[in-house]
Amino acid sequence: MARRTAKIDLPVDEIRRYLEPGPIVLVSSAHAGKRNIMTMGWHTVMEFTPSLVGCIIAGGNYSFDLIRKSRECVINLPTTALTDAAVGIGNTSGAEIDKFEHFRLTAEKARRVKAPLIRECHANLECRLADDRLVDRYNFFIFEVVKAHVATAPKHPRTLHYTGDGVFMVSGEIISRRSLFRPQML
Amino acid sequence: MARRTAKIDLPVDEIRRYLEPGPIVLVSSAHAGKRNIMTMGWHTVMEFTPSLVGCIIAGGNYSFDLIRKSRECVINLPTTALTDAAVGIGNTSGAEIDKFEHFRLTAEKARRVKAPLIRECHANLECRLADDRLVDRYNFFIFEVVKAHVATAPKHPRTLHYTGDGVFMVSGEIISRRSLFRPQML
Repeated sequence: MARRTAKIDLPVDEIRRYLEPGPIVLVSSAHAGKRNIMTMGWHTVMEFTPSLVGCIIAGGNYSFDLIRKSRECVINLPTTALTDAAVGIGNTSGAEIDKFEHFRLTAEKARRVKAPLIRECHANLECRLADDRLVDRYNFFIFEVVKAHVATAPKHPRTLHYTGDGVFMVSGEIISRRSLFRPQML
Repeated sequence: MARRTAKIDLPVDEIRRYLEPGPIVLVSSAHAGKRNIMTMGWHTVMEFTPSLVGCIIAGGNYSFDLIRKSRECVINLPTTALTDAAVGIGNTSGAEIDKFEHFRLTAEKARRVKAPLIRECHANLECRLADDRLVDRYNFFIFEVVKAHVATAPKHPRTLHYTGDGVFMVSGEIISRRSLFRPQML
């Protein structure tokens, strides 16, 4: 299951390419000797520069405290190869199991944060908490992506998009309408 | 192009089904005799009850003032049948054209807000501005969905998911992992 494709740096202002189509992601975190992974689907790109991503992390998650206290996380992009791991991660608690071990995922050292990357994911976005003013009211965290790693292939990874009720939509065909865009709108 | 499929009410706490997979949406608005449509891809579900959606509407958009002043909008879900209209709407300005007329879309009266629905879209989510505290800093609006209409067919509409650079991913196959979920996690 471990992906062997080499990863390259992606300019952080281009991470929309992976997050904007709405895939579920795996968020890895660590604090005070504990680590965890959670599955997350409520997120949005917010800005190109700085590269901002907003997301909901409910207070009941074991990851909530790890992220709030460390003020860091990594947003990892799984593909369909990790479907059952992503579902399993979303239906277990880090209070009871070590999810890296349980789901046989490889924790790798990040470059700019202490939270671990998940090697088997197509992309890894190292994040620092940029704004927590909506955390108490909405569980809404605003992160700055400070480093991005992406696999060089495939160009269009098969990602998982949750629709509720246990059902996922998988990314499908790619269509270009580049010729219909004004250059500044691309 | 006009969709004739009847629409039914959807409980507002179930709108994640359409927004969580990350489709581009068409946001319609009206204020002081003006109306407009914009294409938007930076949004996230934030809560089930109340039904909250957060999204970025940049200050340069003609829709920005209409929405900020009226404190309302409708989030409409286009399918691939509206691909070129969605691209066209995103590459023109409401300051210069009436987008309903130009793109031959039908403005229908909403039930709970004054902004018009777009009839040809698969789903229409009537929204009221719930929190504007992050608008000045991030152009981030938090809306409450107060009424939702969805077409009865198809069950899984073919939606458009933007990846930047003029390229869209189209929703693909559907897979269920319902049996692997704990009931409260569905």
